[in-house]
Amino acid sequence: MQSHQFFLYLLIILLTARLFAELVTRMQAPSVIGELLAGVVLGPSLLGWIHPVEAIKLMAEIGIILLLFEVGLATDLKRLVKTGAKSAVVAISGFILPLLMGFSLSYWIFDLSVLVSLFIGGTITATSIGITVRVLSDLHRQHSTEGQIVLGAAVLDDILGVVLLALLYEFSSGGGVSFFNASKVLIFVGAFFVLAPIAAKLISLVIRRFDNVSLVPGLLPTTVISLVLFFAWLAHALGAPELLGGFAAGLALSRRFFLPLGIALNTDEQFANRIEDQMRPIVQLFTPIFFVFVGLSLNLHEIDWSSPFIWGFSLTLVLVAIIGKMIGPFFINENMATRVMIGMAMIPRGEVGIIFAELGRVSGIFSNEIYAGMIMVIALTTLLPPFVMKWYYGRYGELLQAES
Amino acid sequence: MQSHQFFLYLLIILLTARLFAELVTRMQAPSVIGELLAGVVLGPSLLGWIHPVEAIKLMAEIGIILLLFEVGLATDLKRLVKTGAKSAVVAISGFILPLLMGFSLSYWIFDLSVLVSLFIGGTITATSIGITVRVLSDLHRQHSTEGQIVLGAAVLDDILGVVLLALLYEFSSGGGVSFFNASKVLIFVGAFFVLAPIAAKLISLVIRRFDNVSLVPGLLPTTVISLVLFFAWLAHALGAPELLGGFAAGLALSRRFFLPLGIALNTDEQFANRIEDQMRPIVQLFTPIFFVFVGLSLNLHEIDWSSPFIWGFSLTLVLVAIIGKMIGPFFINENMATRVMIGMAMIPRGEVGIIFAELGRVSGIFSNEIYAGMIMVIALTTLLPPFVMKWYYGRYGELLQAES
Repeated sequence: MQSHQFFLYLLIILLTARLFAELVTRMQAPSVIGELLAGVVLGPSLLGWIHPVEAIKLMAEIGIILLLFEVGLATDLKRLVKTGAKSAVVAISGFILPLLMGFSLSYWIFDLSVLVSLFIGGTITATSIGITVRVLSDLHRQHSTEGQIVLGAAVLDDILGVVLLALLYEFSSGGGVSFFNASKVLIFVGAFFVLAPIAAKLISLVIRRFDNVSLVPGLLPTTVISLVLFFAWLAHALGAPELLGGFAAGLALSRRFFLPLGIALNTDEQFANRIEDQMRPIVQLFTPIFFVFVGLSLNLHEIDWSSPFIWGFSLTLVLVAIIGKMIGPFFINENMATRVMIGMAMIPRGEVGIIFAELGRVSGIFSNEIYAGMIMVIALTTLLPPFVMKWYYGRYGELLQAES
Repeated sequence: MQSHQFFLYLLIILLTARLFAELVTRMQAPSVIGELLAGVVLGPSLLGWIHPVEAIKLMAEIGIILLLFEVGLATDLKRLVKTGAKSAVVAISGFILPLLMGFSLSYWIFDLSVLVSLFIGGTITATSIGITVRVLSDLHRQHSTEGQIVLGAAVLDDILGVVLLALLYEFSSGGGVSFFNASKVLIFVGAFFVLAPIAAKLISLVIRRFDNVSLVPGLLPTTVISLVLFFAWLAHALGAPELLGGFAAGLALSRRFFLPLGIALNTDEQFANRIEDQMRPIVQLFTPIFFVFVGLSLNLHEIDWSSPFIWGFSLTLVLVAIIGKMIGPFFINENMATRVMIGMAMIPRGEVGIIFAELGRVSGIFSNEIYAGMIMVIALTTLLPPFVMKWYYGRYGELLQAES
């Protein structure tokens, strides 16, 4: 790809994302919707100006990892641990219910094969952390109780989704399902999540020491990005989603991170401020690229709008995808408004869903019709909740716990 | 390319650049040398760990454009105009002399064909703005009199170099040299350089107005980068080097930019500060990628170290490349120390030289031996001056004009 062509793509993406984000914000919608719409408009669904080329894809992936880094940076680990049990309930129920319900619907009602039904169930399991986080932060609810519960749950069900994907991948490629392998992946990912922030914390201490003796300007942007990329790479190497590496790195550099065993490393307030100030413009530059890229990846032309099967299939599946996420929060001890808010925040499917659908299509498991139906489910679950959540928050906001 | 592989490449590039930059700084060399060395070590010359893949190349090009943007941002246009005549003398002599001397040496002494000799002359005409700017700023001389003269001259001879390249390209592809086309390119580029900063200034006023009413955070990084990319794209579309677009955009956003006809638009000091603060981490992140990439692109294995022809050819050509740039400054009215400093600062060849050599090789004009010789010339002119300039500045620095 010629560089001037790439520059043109990138600037069109950045400016359109900005324009749509500002417009939808004025129409009371969260800005992330504008960025997704920008991708739909620029991509194959409408204008077809921008092709999701590799360099844009890679920058988009840096974008989502950096967004998770920023989320980690702003996360209070103590509170995340406190809400951990509730997050686990929301995550596990929100993983199992859509999987079972999606499978049952496909297998018994729509008469599809076991493998196809499993892939359909899998596609609707994982909440899109990126979209959920952006919606919560657009509403300034990312540090609220429900924000913390949702964040923990989304992280957990992403892990479960990826483990399921690994299993189904082996299954579909004829390898048979090995529960030994599945548990190995799960243990690796679990270990990563416990150990990575601690390792990242130790590395961040090295960066801080180096920061005092560095003779060349620009230490923080390059080393912090390197740290984030390293943990993204490590997460992948251990079978976890890459964006969890960004979250772990952010958690480690956050103001309130503490090591276990009482080794409280008091974070230098000034150092934490400098990291935030210098990383913010970089995060703000890369993040919109990701959401535009998600929009670019949805081809609405692939949906045969006249097929009754697709409408019946995908609309019932959307219902299942919504109900499957709304039930879990009722098992936790929060007031009704908070439960509803948590359930809605868990609805958007995105990255992992698209990966599932893409794998299903490429491996021939999904027919074009099924694939189109899945794209429609992902699009609706992604595009609707932000509006409903914003409206709900406007109406019932006073019933939610104040920022704690 | 898999994203985790890309992350690994990128973090290795960033960390190695940082490590080598810190090391060479402690050995009294400019940090840019460390970044170039990092590329040589990581690339095909030594370890072969990193291949100059497309996504890295594109990020490197954003890096050099952003570096020129930052240079433009810190440039005082009044002073650039004041030193304009001196810059023109240095640029034109530093363009014509290496071209003539390189051609003559190749044609008469080494008995090569006219086309090959023209390409060799062309390869050693253009000073590397990027490397020159970094060396000057490593010495804190980028705002000095000689810094301004060198900057203006490097911008000008880059333009001349690219026009020559366009001519030779037509010539070599059998189209014959059209002086009409050549002057058209020259006029386009000239018009771009006069009009682009004015257009960019007007756009920047829109950004500033928008900044007051924006509801979505992150306006400055995305819109300023878009502005820079747009002018890079426009420069290319008009036949000018892309990095000049970055320079024009930086000039327009600089504190001391003024429009002609007396329309002095007083720049809001606070707005200028915010742009600088938010762009600095982004520039610092991308710039090292460029210099590492230059190092990655040099394959020292391509040099047959045992060939007497190569040694004789490339060492005399290095002399020509040095002398060709050192003569010009003696025509301008500065003291001797300043003239020598200007001459040395003009020596590094880089981007345009590599493009020339690559085009010569791909089109079959350069044999492997000649290509290797050219790579050696580029490597030596790039790697030596920073050391000599640093030493010279340490010894004769008091004879140079103080920052004016």
